Amino acid sequence: MRRLLCAGIALALVPRLAAADEGMWTFDAFPKDKVEKAYGFKATDAWLKHVQLSSARLAGGCSASFVSDRGLVMTNHHCAHQCIEQLSTAQKDFVKAGFYAPALADEVKCPDVEVNQLVEITDVTAALRKATAGLDGEAYHKAQRAEKARLEKACQTSPDLRCEVVTLYHGGVYDLYKYRRFQDVRLVFAPEFAVAFFGGDPDNFEFPRYDLDVSFLRVYENGKPAHTKEHFAWSAHGAQAGELTFVSGNPGATARLFTVAQLKYQRDFALPERLFRLAEFRGLISGWQQKGAEEKRISNATLFYVENSYKALRGMFDSLRDEKFFASLVANEEALRASISKDPARAAKVLPAFDAIAKAQERLKEIRTQYIYLEQGAGFGGDLFRHARHLVRAADELPKPNGERLREYRDSGLPELTQDLFSPAPIYPSFEKLQLAYGLTKLRERLGPDDPVVKKILGKESPEEVASRAVDGTKLKDPAVRKALFEGGAKAVGASDDPMVALAKLADPEARAVRRTYEDEVESVVQKNQEIIADTRFAVQGRSTYPDATFTARLSYGKVEGWKEGTKAVEPFTTFGGAFERATGRDPFALPQSWLDAKGRLDLGTRFNFVTDNDIIGGNSGSPMVNRNAEIVGLIFDGNIWSLGGDYGFDESNNRAVAVHSDALLEALSRIYGAQRIVDELQPARSARK
Amino acid sequence: MRRLLCAGIALALVPRLAAADEGMWTFDAFPKDKVEKAYGFKATDAWLKHVQLSSARLAGGCSASFVSDRGLVMTNHHCAHQCIEQLSTAQKDFVKAGFYAPALADEVKCPDVEVNQLVEITDVTAALRKATAGLDGEAYHKAQRAEKARLEKACQTSPDLRCEVVTLYHGGVYDLYKYRRFQDVRLVFAPEFAVAFFGGDPDNFEFPRYDLDVSFLRVYENGKPAHTKEHFAWSAHGAQAGELTFVSGNPGATARLFTVAQLKYQRDFALPERLFRLAEFRGLISGWQQKGAEEKRISNATLFYVENSYKALRGMFDSLRDEKFFASLVANEEALRASISKDPARAAKVLPAFDAIAKAQERLKEIRTQYIYLEQGAGFGGDLFRHARHLVRAADELPKPNGERLREYRDSGLPELTQDLFSPAPIYPSFEKLQLAYGLTKLRERLGPDDPVVKKILGKESPEEVASRAVDGTKLKDPAVRKALFEGGAKAVGASDDPMVALAKLADPEARAVRRTYEDEVESVVQKNQEIIADTRFAVQGRSTYPDATFTARLSYGKVEGWKEGTKAVEPFTTFGGAFERATGRDPFALPQSWLDAKGRLDLGTRFNFVTDNDIIGGNSGSPMVNRNAEIVGLIFDGNIWSLGGDYGFDESNNRAVAVHSDALLEALSRIYGAQRIVDELQPARSARK
Repeated sequence: MRRLLCAGIALALVPRLAAADEGMWTFDAFPKDKVEKAYGFKATDAWLKHVQLSSARLAGGCSASFVSDRGLVMTNHHCAHQCIEQLSTAQKDFVKAGFYAPALADEVKCPDVEVNQLVEITDVTAALRKATAGLDGEAYHKAQRAEKARLEKACQTSPDLRCEVVTLYHGGVYDLYKYRRFQDVRLVFAPEFAVAFFGGDPDNFEFPRYDLDVSFLRVYENGKPAHTKEHFAWSAHGAQAGELTFVSGNPGATARLFTVAQLKYQRDFALPERLFRLAEFRGLISGWQQKGAEEKRISNATLFYVENSYKALRGMFDSLRDEKFFASLVANEEALRASISKDPARAAKVLPAFDAIAKAQERLKEIRTQYIYLEQGAGFGGDLFRHARHLVRAADELPKPNGERLREYRDSGLPELTQDLFSPAPIYPSFEKLQLAYGLTKLRERLGPDDPVVKKILGKESPEEVASRAVDGTKLKDPAVRKALFEGGAKAVGASDDPMVALAKLADPEARAVRRTYEDEVESVVQKNQEIIADTRFAVQGRSTYPDATFTARLSYGKVEGWKEGTKAVEPFTTFGGAFERATGRDPFALPQSWLDAKGRLDLGTRFNFVTDNDIIGGNSGSPMVNRNAEIVGLIFDGNIWSLGGDYGFDESNNRAVAVHSDALLEALSRIYGAQRIVDELQPARSARK
Repeated sequence: MRRLLCAGIALALVPRLAAADEGMWTFDAFPKDKVEKAYGFKATDAWLKHVQLSSARLAGGCSASFVSDRGLVMTNHHCAHQCIEQLSTAQKDFVKAGFYAPALADEVKCPDVEVNQLVEITDVTAALRKATAGLDGEAYHKAQRAEKARLEKACQTSPDLRCEVVTLYHGGVYDLYKYRRFQDVRLVFAPEFAVAFFGGDPDNFEFPRYDLDVSFLRVYENGKPAHTKEHFAWSAHGAQAGELTFVSGNPGATARLFTVAQLKYQRDFALPERLFRLAEFRGLISGWQQKGAEEKRISNATLFYVENSYKALRGMFDSLRDEKFFASLVANEEALRASISKDPARAAKVLPAFDAIAKAQERLKEIRTQYIYLEQGAGFGGDLFRHARHLVRAADELPKPNGERLREYRDSGLPELTQDLFSPAPIYPSFEKLQLAYGLTKLRERLGPDDPVVKKILGKESPEEVASRAVDGTKLKDPAVRKALFEGGAKAVGASDDPMVALAKLADPEARAVRRTYEDEVESVVQKNQEIIADTRFAVQGRSTYPDATFTARLSYGKVEGWKEGTKAVEPFTTFGGAFERATGRDPFALPQSWLDAKGRLDLGTRFNFVTDNDIIGGNSGSPMVNRNAEIVGLIFDGNIWSLGGDYGFDESNNRAVAVHSDALLEALSRIYGAQRIVDELQPARSARK
């Protein structure tokens, strides 16, 4: 079977060593001794601090790194895809043609990108525990929300900071993470989509691979490149076979400490239902793209996102419907419960927590359709509706005390909210209509035409008519209008007769109601009871294991190594030459003209992509991979197909991280793209020597 | 929970009465006594024979009835949808406008419809058992195939007959079914799609309902209306509340006697995977339809089929992922095994059959992707490829002895095969390309770009290029060309350089190979071991219970009755007036102009649709519903949402069949459509009195 080691083993109360290279470790609890024992390398506190500060996060959901002292940021092409598409027009398509700013003055601001640098971690567990002591359901939720808001607000002394109370170990630990925030982020370089995503969806999550999935951004302060003293140097030789590698990034979410009831909900409801939605939406966009080139251009980033999510979730679904694997997760929980049962006092406290979580899953089944379609947005769609809802809600929420607001309207969330709301990114009415009409059709399909909200929203109109009327009539396409409404607050929004705002208002009471039910009867119940289980685990294990991923900074260690696919060994490296061999000239296996032209100048033996056994997951995209000298040796952009089960467990035998080799980046920048300005900035010492 | 009574109970060896109105009974084992006890009605042999002979099957997958002595056939609109679309053109769209032949001479031949009338049932169990005695795997499969072919050929003494060896009780019984076959079937009447499918997908499988889902066809012999002495008379008053009702039809497939291993495979693999495929294909067509009205017209029947399947399968998936329901199925099997274990000799023989079936499911998991994409056609798509594959295979298969051929090329299957192959139905290149390119894209996605078949098929081309080349270049759009190739046999097909034929040849060896693996290592293993379990069941129960549905003639009994939705009672009838109230003027809630115009002439109190607790399933569409006098009181066209779990079990409390009321049919024909010719034919006595 696919997996030797199972996630859930981490639950066992008997202290346990994670698999050799398993783990997404927080910077303040990195297993230095274990790494030293295995690899003879001692990660000092100074080394860890340097790596932490040289790493970055894209608030939209990716990882990145600082690679020069002048604010140069490296991440994946697919992490900047939306920006690249937003900067494009029908006449000038940077997704297709690539982008390179030959001089600093040519760098262009990304409408929606925010870069975060984690500068400080403070343990606030005691404060949170105190605030929620003895509380349940809504009261628990309110108290926790208020305390988080208080802590975040106190921390966030300037708009250049972003403070977040972070939940680790499902409530075993609460930390306050303080980030330096950069909102002026400009595009420096991006290759053509064709080579950034060579092999496309068919090769996604596969290996061997041949992708130059890179983009360079630059963070600015006061209109000038920010000074980023802490940044990664570039390795002279790149990653070698067997070499110790570190990946510093922000894995999004894992479920390795979920209870069986939660896992069953994932397997039987959350995953298949999301796959149904993604599959249909994928088909819809693919079919609509056949209308013409412009439709294709304006919807390709969305299609990419949908296809990527679809394939990733399929991998997760595959792992959970593997009967043996699932049985092992069940066995792990049973072992944990048996171990708890040995101490009657502990059992009386902890065992009911499992039942409470199971009951919350049943409640979730009852409200999930309403919650997903009305509140999570599956029943609407498009940027305009999202903006309208934010305007309507911000008008209601902002006058409230910070701690009582919905979380995205807390002071700490406002910079992100307004960046999105005031973004000059283009909005395409035709694509907006497609998405909104589709969402409304699904809303009617899933809630039924006789549902009161559906009737209120559609009246006698069709979903297409409602969508067209709202999209055609709205003034929200103009960011200035959105800004004015936002700043005008409740009065301006209340007086607005904008049809998209009206639509958002119409759906809001029921959406808010189901969200409240979700938060009070599902989320807070799960949180509170996960805390109880986590406490028990902590009583025995302390921080000798790592918390589930939560899109916070983590460091993983591992080595460059292939794996066995059945009896066949998969080699860890590919080369430029391999890309030319694999190319068919047809999308998604068509290399761009720049590559065909440069072929003669290239060293075809240059290592292109490679794999390591670092433990990563979605959100790690764009993560720097560094060696023991904290020098860049690669750029994470994917995991292999086996790594998709990583949500639930890590199998060192075949879970692999996939990266662009540092040599490939330099070779392509200098010999294909003539981007010597970047190469010099990445290698200041070598460049100075020249 | 949703279900009080569980399918699997039928497995228990303790003789068991099916739920009061449960059961899809064969005509030769109808539980007359039970019906008499419950309803005071004695179904005589003559009565049963009359109902059997007055019922019909559409070979394409629906049920129907003879409703006059001149070959008039009643079925659903959605059962004739494809024919109606095929007879339409961009100028004259009968799907949209409806169709009515005012005179016999105006009736138009449906390209692809075959009507079957079951005339004789012969038990051939002993012959089959003898032929396969002591055999396994491939040998078992070959012997069974040969014996079936022999029996069918011996029976099929004329092309007007269709003989099929039918498997009942998963091999507990083999029957030879002899059908009279009608291949000259003409369209007489169809209403507008808008009222045939009023409420569309949102209302599909729901109730209350307001659909005139009817069409009338006529079977011809030698260019003249066939004489159909046996046919149903029309009820004077239609169905009344509480009245005993019979549904005579051809339910397609149920899985009420599946083992738990098979059910798990359904829940975790077959159903979600098919739903993923259907969801994406549904999205694709929906998006593509936005290109224009013609795209919409030529793909609407396919979209209808896809949406209908999607919703039905979701209902089945919902029932199996209901943990309590599934646990009850598991408990039933455990009870059966426990009961078997009491007799050591029986246990030694029967218990391993469960394990063998479970093992076959594991084997199926290994080959399923290859099987589905290469052999079942998910990796191709469109009519042209299907035709090409049939030509290629027929050339190989027909020279073989009848018993050694793949089943669809046996002599008994040839009339159906050639009707499809020589059909003059229009083929739309744009829709063909969409489907074929999509299929090839999925083939590459699921098998991987490095799979040898994928590489062989695509070479350096994209799926779109391969599809365009094959569709543009093929001559198979012309039925005469297909006929010539078919009749030219291996020589003509071998010499053909038609690109679609070439594509079919290219994929054939691997497709055949995986089919063979499937048949030898999955299908025949399951069949053989199901036979063993069925034998045991028979040893105790005889034919006191009914076999799983297999698209063969079945009779169910029940009564007109609503149900409770939570605490709310759902009334069994709707009226014409309700349809006008529900109408919004927007698709799919727009009544056609003919209805709006006729509103003043209509009796708005006329019963329109209604529900009964007859036990039906997909394939029953178009089934006549008759009263104890064997008079038409309704026309089955749907089941409610709860009935979708009926694949695995029947819950009399809320599983309901949905039918058009016989009064509504007459009222609409005469007052909306002026189709007095049909009304007179349906009611010859009343018409003669006039």
